[in-house]
Amino acid sequence: MTLNNNDKDRFLNELIDYLSIPSVSTDDAFKDEIIKAAHFTKDAFIEAGAEETRVVETKGHPIVVAHSSTDDNLPRVLVYGHYDVQPADPIELWDQDPFLPVVKNGRVVARGSADDKGQVYMHIKALEYLKKNNIPHNILFLIEGEEEIGSPNLAPFIIDNNDVLACDIILVSDTSMISPQNPSITTSIRGLSYLEIKVTGPNRDLHSGTYGGAVANPAIELSKILAQLKDERGRVTIPGFYDDVIELSQVERGKLNARPFDLSHYKKDLDIKEVTGEASYTTLERTGIRPSLDINGIWSGYTGKGSKTVLPSIAQAKVSMRLVANQNHEDITRKAKTYITSLAPRTVKIKVEEHHGAQPAMMSVDNFGYRIADKAFQDVWGKRPLPTYEGGSLPIVSLLQEQLTEDVVLMGFGLDEDRIHSPNESFSLEMFYKGIETIIAFYNNLFISIKTNNE
Amino acid sequence: MTLNNNDKDRFLNELIDYLSIPSVSTDDAFKDEIIKAAHFTKDAFIEAGAEETRVVETKGHPIVVAHSSTDDNLPRVLVYGHYDVQPADPIELWDQDPFLPVVKNGRVVARGSADDKGQVYMHIKALEYLKKNNIPHNILFLIEGEEEIGSPNLAPFIIDNNDVLACDIILVSDTSMISPQNPSITTSIRGLSYLEIKVTGPNRDLHSGTYGGAVANPAIELSKILAQLKDERGRVTIPGFYDDVIELSQVERGKLNARPFDLSHYKKDLDIKEVTGEASYTTLERTGIRPSLDINGIWSGYTGKGSKTVLPSIAQAKVSMRLVANQNHEDITRKAKTYITSLAPRTVKIKVEEHHGAQPAMMSVDNFGYRIADKAFQDVWGKRPLPTYEGGSLPIVSLLQEQLTEDVVLMGFGLDEDRIHSPNESFSLEMFYKGIETIIAFYNNLFISIKTNNE
Repeated sequence: MTLNNNDKDRFLNELIDYLSIPSVSTDDAFKDEIIKAAHFTKDAFIEAGAEETRVVETKGHPIVVAHSSTDDNLPRVLVYGHYDVQPADPIELWDQDPFLPVVKNGRVVARGSADDKGQVYMHIKALEYLKKNNIPHNILFLIEGEEEIGSPNLAPFIIDNNDVLACDIILVSDTSMISPQNPSITTSIRGLSYLEIKVTGPNRDLHSGTYGGAVANPAIELSKILAQLKDERGRVTIPGFYDDVIELSQVERGKLNARPFDLSHYKKDLDIKEVTGEASYTTLERTGIRPSLDINGIWSGYTGKGSKTVLPSIAQAKVSMRLVANQNHEDITRKAKTYITSLAPRTVKIKVEEHHGAQPAMMSVDNFGYRIADKAFQDVWGKRPLPTYEGGSLPIVSLLQEQLTEDVVLMGFGLDEDRIHSPNESFSLEMFYKGIETIIAFYNNLFISIKTNNE
Repeated sequence: MTLNNNDKDRFLNELIDYLSIPSVSTDDAFKDEIIKAAHFTKDAFIEAGAEETRVVETKGHPIVVAHSSTDDNLPRVLVYGHYDVQPADPIELWDQDPFLPVVKNGRVVARGSADDKGQVYMHIKALEYLKKNNIPHNILFLIEGEEEIGSPNLAPFIIDNNDVLACDIILVSDTSMISPQNPSITTSIRGLSYLEIKVTGPNRDLHSGTYGGAVANPAIELSKILAQLKDERGRVTIPGFYDDVIELSQVERGKLNARPFDLSHYKKDLDIKEVTGEASYTTLERTGIRPSLDINGIWSGYTGKGSKTVLPSIAQAKVSMRLVANQNHEDITRKAKTYITSLAPRTVKIKVEEHHGAQPAMMSVDNFGYRIADKAFQDVWGKRPLPTYEGGSLPIVSLLQEQLTEDVVLMGFGLDEDRIHSPNESFSLEMFYKGIETIIAFYNNLFISIKTNNE
């Protein structure tokens, strides 16, 4: 099947309404918008024909649950997604208002367009098609509002309701493909350990002339600490950091590096002269199968225009690590806190606090769900999808695997150029429409496979 | 003489009006307030009885010039001060509005109270007294509005008018005394070299999951650069940095260290466990006769609440060095720019720009002006003032010395607890009133000394 143009236009207009809601989960100032987005999601499921829909209140942002089944004996698919979005900062780098979506060059530009509202909406529209065309299915939808802050309330919800949520396959569309020419399915995602460091020197901002030279500068001490977190070979220096990392075989590494990748295009796109990272690994490996450490933010002292001769009292940084199987984010967070704290000299005070974490996860290409998805991609894209490693984290995946089923399929339709988490995030309309077709093909193939099996 | 209580109350109320004007020089948003403060200064001189007063326009903020003379054959004293103030940031750490002055515990609390409006106003009120009591004097006042941004327009004004500004003694009240029990006169001030560093990685903020591990993080690279600027002995690593530093003799160091100083009180006041700095020097030496380097500000990436998994595009820092005689700030700035630039790896771009600089300066205790001031302090404080080294910079002093006279007297009435450049800056009323008396005593002693000499 291919979508007709009337449907395409309608789907796009509906998506634009969805993207207009600034559902930023990390900042309480947007609480009302979060509620609005949850209800928009619920209403969209109702309009698509879902039989049961609910907005489930939590201690934080609500979860939207929807259900649609033509035959409860069919393998049950659980679709996971999120309606919350990253903050739009730095807002001045956007070419437009991040929450007044525009269509430009075949893309819809708005915060959340690719991550993840656009991809959630594809599943809603696929459901509408299944209903209208009487395609057999048995689907439970679980759309949360706290993915960008680590799903603190979805996790207990899943654990408490793992009987009700029991399913055979989990479909998640919150990742990217290599390119429209090279469809792919993510079979590995990195975990996350996210820390905030606060170094305090003197109890107040001082005049750098009067005190400079005799009183430890917390910004210098913080810089020294951060500078020690990686060695000259690009390896993270936290003791025990690599203890549980699964080393891939040469064969597996060969397969990973065989995927199409143009380093010179990569560098040109980012306007960098050189890539960097852990010695003896390729760029695909560094972002796929190896853990990493980044400073996500740093601030201290006077950051306005001109000059201010201040010796700051406080210096702070947000530091996060991407983890790979089988690192455990709680273990890494503990090791990192201990190590970072130990690096502070006696001249300053240090406090290391943790934000949310996420476990890494791996998915087998031999799973039933993966094989159905593989076929669906061939139907729509005319090509077998490549299994790929994704650098980002989906905190909930390892929990879904643990609580519900190992058979998670990361059927993501983002592209590298979507600029997720960055200014001018956008989502390709081609991916949006073909993604809907791929999801429909997935349910078609699932039904055919069951029917064939039963005959 | 001692001031009567009516005058004291009136002087304080006038000062409060002066401090209510937010004359922040570094931010153009305050341009109107700067103009207002300049005219307030001029009007105050007129009311005090100055014969000629002018607001001199410049390319930047105006200079206020005032003149009062009972006898042009008397040694001419030039009084320098500034009506501009540091920004009030971080404004949330003030217990009150920085520009709604309040009197608390014998202090007037407001931005600029000690640095330098309070001290400028002492000279205006001293002039009023000289006029009312017919004390002979010959004074030229030069009050600028750009001290906190490096006096870019006062310097050419002095050079262009060095004949008109010719004088015998220069009086500057913009420094501190040790304590009310230990009056002191500053005989050495440090210079300043102030740089801003910008490190650029990728051309946009990236998702730290997708790219982390393969693309250089500018905040990490900046941290590494900053961490290298001092070695483990607390010495600045810029090649040639110490080349021109005058090493004081053991005798001179002994004198310097003999001034009253309580290290445990110093640490307690700042709430720090340990002081730090260049090995083999005392705290008084580290802040007086040795150069230093500080980070005044650093910023990159996401600095809001919660977490954002961003690999930032840009990281920036403000870094400044305090210099001592005979370091030259232009030479040090050049060396620092070259060195810092050389520390950046090929994976990032770096730009180092300079803000204002200042030459260090030394003043001899054998100067005529110093000896008059020494006597004035004895009259008012009942004790000889100690010559001291001040860690801060007064960019204009070396220029005043070069263009007008070596005989600069830094007759400052600040105290360590004034928190200049910090939240809750305040100025002691005792120092304010006794300072006015000291200035009056200075002119009295100057006249007596001339009369005695001529007899």
